[in-house]
Amino acid sequence: MGRASSIVSFSLTLLILFHGYTAQQWPNECQLDQLNALEPSQVIQSEGGRIEVWDHHAPQLRCSGFAFERFVIEPQGLYLPTFMNAGKLTFVVHGTGLMGRVVPGCPETFIESPVFGESQGQGQGQGQGFRDMHQKVEHLRCGDTIATPSGVAQWFYNNGNEPLILVAAADLANHENQLDRNLRPVLIAGNNPQGQEWLQGRQQQKQNNIFTGFAPEILAQAFKINVETAQQLQSHQDNRGNIVKVKGPFSVIRPPLRRGQGGQQPQEKANGLEETLCTMRCTENLDDPSDADVYTPSLGYINTVNSYNLPILRLLHLSALRGSIRNNAMVLPQWNVNANSALYVTNGRAHIQMVNDNGDRVFDQEVSNGQLLIVPQGFSVMKRATSEQFQWIEFKTNENAQVNSLAGRTSVMTGLPLEVITNGFQISPQEAKRVKFSTMETTLTHSSGPMSYGRPRV
Amino acid sequence: MGRASSIVSFSLTLLILFHGYTAQQWPNECQLDQLNALEPSQVIQSEGGRIEVWDHHAPQLRCSGFAFERFVIEPQGLYLPTFMNAGKLTFVVHGTGLMGRVVPGCPETFIESPVFGESQGQGQGQGQGFRDMHQKVEHLRCGDTIATPSGVAQWFYNNGNEPLILVAAADLANHENQLDRNLRPVLIAGNNPQGQEWLQGRQQQKQNNIFTGFAPEILAQAFKINVETAQQLQSHQDNRGNIVKVKGPFSVIRPPLRRGQGGQQPQEKANGLEETLCTMRCTENLDDPSDADVYTPSLGYINTVNSYNLPILRLLHLSALRGSIRNNAMVLPQWNVNANSALYVTNGRAHIQMVNDNGDRVFDQEVSNGQLLIVPQGFSVMKRATSEQFQWIEFKTNENAQVNSLAGRTSVMTGLPLEVITNGFQISPQEAKRVKFSTMETTLTHSSGPMSYGRPRV
Amino acid sequence: MGRASSIVSFSLTLLILFHGYTAQQWPNECQLDQLNALEPSQVIQSEGGRIEVWDHHAPQLRCSGFAFERFVIEPQGLYLPTFMNAGKLTFVVHGTGLMGRVVPGCPETFIESPVFGESQGQGQGQGQGFRDMHQKVEHLRCGDTIATPSGVAQWFYNNGNEPLILVAAADLANHENQLDRNLRPVLIAGNNPQGQEWLQGRQQQKQNNIFTGFAPEILAQAFKINVETAQQLQSHQDNRGNIVKVKGPFSVIRPPLRRGQGGQQPQEKANGLEETLCTMRCTENLDDPSDADVYTPSLGYINTVNSYNLPILRLLHLSALRGSIRNNAMVLPQWNVNANSALYVTNGRAHIQMVNDNGDRVFDQEVSNGQLLIVPQGFSVMKRATSEQFQWIEFKTNENAQVNSLAGRTSVMTGLPLEVITNGFQISPQEAKRVKFSTMETTLTHSSGPMSYGRPRV
Repeated sequence: MGRASSIVSFSLTLLILFHGYTAQQWPNECQLDQLNALEPSQVIQSEGGRIEVWDHHAPQLRCSGFAFERFVIEPQGLYLPTFMNAGKLTFVVHGTGLMGRVVPGCPETFIESPVFGESQGQGQGQGQGFRDMHQKVEHLRCGDTIATPSGVAQWFYNNGNEPLILVAAADLANHENQLDRNLRPVLIAGNNPQGQEWLQGRQQQKQNNIFTGFAPEILAQAFKINVETAQQLQSHQDNRGNIVKVKGPFSVIRPPLRRGQGGQQPQEKANGLEETLCTMRCTENLDDPSDADVYTPSLGYINTVNSYNLPILRLLHLSALRGSIRNNAMVLPQWNVNANSALYVTNGRAHIQMVNDNGDRVFDQEVSNGQLLIVPQGFSVMKRATSEQFQWIEFKTNENAQVNSLAGRTSVMTGLPLEVITNGFQISPQEAKRVKFSTMETTLTHSSGPMSYGRPRV
Repeated sequence: MGRASSIVSFSLTLLILFHGYTAQQWPNECQLDQLNALEPSQVIQSEGGRIEVWDHHAPQLRCSGFAFERFVIEPQGLYLPTFMNAGKLTFVVHGTGLMGRVVPGCPETFIESPVFGESQGQGQGQGQGFRDMHQKVEHLRCGDTIATPSGVAQWFYNNGNEPLILVAAADLANHENQLDRNLRPVLIAGNNPQGQEWLQGRQQQKQNNIFTGFAPEILAQAFKINVETAQQLQSHQDNRGNIVKVKGPFSVIRPPLRRGQGGQQPQEKANGLEETLCTMRCTENLDDPSDADVYTPSLGYINTVNSYNLPILRLLHLSALRGSIRNNAMVLPQWNVNANSALYVTNGRAHIQMVNDNGDRVFDQEVSNGQLLIVPQGFSVMKRATSEQFQWIEFKTNENAQVNSLAGRTSVMTGLPLEVITNGFQISPQEAKRVKFSTMETTLTHSSGPMSYGRPRV
Repeated sequence: MGRASSIVSFSLTLLILFHGYTAQQWPNECQLDQLNALEPSQVIQSEGGRIEVWDHHAPQLRCSGFAFERFVIEPQGLYLPTFMNAGKLTFVVHGTGLMGRVVPGCPETFIESPVFGESQGQGQGQGQGFRDMHQKVEHLRCGDTIATPSGVAQWFYNNGNEPLILVAAADLANHENQLDRNLRPVLIAGNNPQGQEWLQGRQQQKQNNIFTGFAPEILAQAFKINVETAQQLQSHQDNRGNIVKVKGPFSVIRPPLRRGQGGQQPQEKANGLEETLCTMRCTENLDDPSDADVYTPSLGYINTVNSYNLPILRLLHLSALRGSIRNNAMVLPQWNVNANSALYVTNGRAHIQMVNDNGDRVFDQEVSNGQLLIVPQGFSVMKRATSEQFQWIEFKTNENAQVNSLAGRTSVMTGLPLEVITNGFQISPQEAKRVKFSTMETTLTHSSGPMSYGRPRV
């Protein structure tokens, strides 16, 4: 009996070991034979909003290198300054707000005019003659796409009446991140009482701000403040989370609201990284159809941002594409040539069909508002709006991500000689000509009527 | 008894676990203490030829990042358009042929002249007034080295009377590949009924072309063709494989055959990647001794291609070296400074001796036609022809791969002061002078008479 | 009984397996919740000195990509030419010496003047008319920081009366290293009888020089020397190690000792890597306070070298910072924006407090002369001298490593609007103004009096 059970034990052990060996022999292997639309795996509640986090250990995100988050900031909500260990792109899905970033070594260029008479009586040292000075603050509106390098602290404030909704994609796989493939947000202020449940190998615990780990006396000396204020910086008693509610007015210095993008030409200065970063443009609006890269009035538009129109992306190795199509418009099947992409649905619904390198259909579903889909390099994808409007933002892991279409005027089929097509597919020259030249559109086309689809077919 | 066996079970378990732990603690470790000449591990048979695939999970290939394939295309064989998830270099070992590549977004610049009178009567829409137009088609001959970025579809046609033999090396370890370290060929046409046996974690199954995974109705709408033609694109009934036999003439548009490389100066345009890629030169012939970088009439020549003479290699992070030496010529011992290399023998035999970083001899054999040898960064290698002629192509994982020689006029020994040599090796100044200055050649030297060699000696 | 024990065995097995699974699922995960000051794990003794090696498999080094070594070369000691599979920076901690590097393909530009009359009688071929010629030899002094690319052989000679002490950091994680994350030193001369104990998967054994693995007849033919000299190059009978003692004078050709850095302007030539590398400046002295980047007479100075003042660092993706502060001076809390760093204490003691991304204190100790501490990207660090003087060298894994301070005039707090600080920390505008503007220094400040510290507090 003992013998039997121990033999069972032994065999089972070997079995598990053998299985483990196979799986772990190439531990970074991508398992991409079955893709899913991904939903957030954790919601971090705060006083002034919430952060929804996708599990970046999910095979699709792990393999493509993405970490993905959604921020819902309520009116008067302030997302406290935080920096990451990776470069990221943030897209404004909904609402309006203010955004500030603190770039290391750059001067405070937003200075409140002095109030004469006030400065004489006080004699508070450096505070004299002005009320505040700080780095650049920008107005945000729908469609703004914001590039943030690693290590640069960023805050958002919702000054509107509706929730400010942002989605952000960080690339953990490029050299901006020099640690492992974990997104490590570092809080300058606030905290996260729930902790990060997606961090492997670390017990889930309250995440504190950067000041909490330092001894109060050290902070007092570093800031030349008293120990009580230093302890206040550590926010021990604070349970408001990382997004807090501002009571009363939020009076930062800021220029009047811009009107569109007119006159903002991308200008790249090449005289040293630090100097460039201080004045470098980091935001581009992708929701303006008048800026569209692909436009068909009856179908929709596609707008891209890459290192040619936003040079800071050269540092971040990221780019983005914004799409907005009408009912029954179809984005012709295409694949990512040199990037992975993360497609997030901001509005409406679409039927998406995706084919992997083996010719297998690995995704064939309707995706809707709030869902995330990873499109790995070389996988072909067709999108077809199934609601009145379908809008999405697609982040790509290359500063100049390219796509290649399967059909259409600039597609691979059009570039092939007729002879290759007739011989490759055993069709007549007439059929081959139709395959090559019938579709004159490059990217968007009409898709007539409903179409059945279902579970992936392998 | 039960106790004993369970203890055995337990101990064995622990033993295996411990062993497993050691091996898996650093799972990407390179095991390079014993190198072998590698042969293909899988042959994919097609109607018009075959593809021989080296197992890129073999430790030497895995560690160096290379995936390696040989294409044997029979006369009238057409390798159907395929793209990869990594940049690659292809070398023409034998035969002549035609090659086309479809670069995303580039125009069809090869246009057949209209046949007057034909266009009036037909009225076939976009097909009117010309027979075909497609992207650039190039003639191939022995020695051509072709750079192909990731995601760019490429086809080959053998228009000669002998097999067209190509070898291709892709670098899975650089940033052109954004997925795991698997080579993922994606078929635009044709299929692979055998499937890819080297893909881990995926059951071996028929590999279909990119159209097979899409619903026929979607293809019909995308191409504006009928569903029957769309089904034809999916090649369900086709079992010809990825290299098919062309019946009748293969009449693609192409300029007359070039005569040598005269007048083809490398020209780099820096005005935007896409524009550059459309006209960028991607092919360089390495078999012309009049272009040689190293040349000794009685010994042979060495010819290199890197990002200085083929600027597209800057994107691919690859370069290549072609060598052709006569009997008993020796390539002086040298090491790769900043690259791994994959050495493929195209003709003849040679004795190769390789020494690792520990000073151990890890390879000491004769290699011959068709064998592949990986030379890791920093490993020293000596090659000596043992047949009338020895020819090889060496692919390197750096756009400007450098070598450092152990002996010869530009070698490390020549650069060292005499005092360092006399003290380091405890030899007299006279001997040290001979070590430094006796060999005036830089790369190739005479190797007099046969020499014994055997199995690696550690 | 047997049953019980086998169930125990089985459970234990599962337990270990489960644990193993968790740990190995993401095998490259960084475990950085508890940092230590690191000491060398192996000492390699040689006739003329010793090499102390830090175990680069230690989680902190493994994760940050660093390999770290200290060289102690006794007077008349000669560190024999060696090259690495990674780019590295070497810092001269103590002593004076000579250094030579052999760059592949570069000419021997240090030529001894011919002694007339000597050359007639000998007729030794190439040796005629001069005594020696070799590549550049440089004088070394304290504070020199030397950039060495992968594959470039380098030697050091101690021509002073005190030990020459060097520390070197190589970055195994960047693309200069194309193999796994092992430092692979390759010996041109000498050997290492002890072997390298830190190389995983390879039994510890004597490490030989590069010649040992080649057959003597091959060396004889390559160098055109007799087989006896070739065998001498293999150093089989030599047990002096990699640092040997020079008997008698060490007469290499070298210009007179430089006086400071005057006139040595960084000049970058962009006409081809090889040509540039031959004359490119590779050394910068970081111990000259008159060159300091940050300087406060009563507190100390900080001096940096990056790709702007030493352009070769653009190839190596490394930079360095030298700090020297007096008793009770404090380096304000700051974090690495885009790099990991390796901090080595060259003199004195300091209290260092470090906080990770979770707000936990992960290091809180006094470090002293000879200790190494890794500062991962995004981790905040405060340094405070606790001896008369504290001096350190910090190597960083980015050619333009940036830091962001928590406190001080160019800090993140100063860049934030007052409203963000008052709301984030729930403090009054007056307190927030003090937090922002009280500390006018950028990097160094006074730290008054002793301060208690202890073990890390999580």
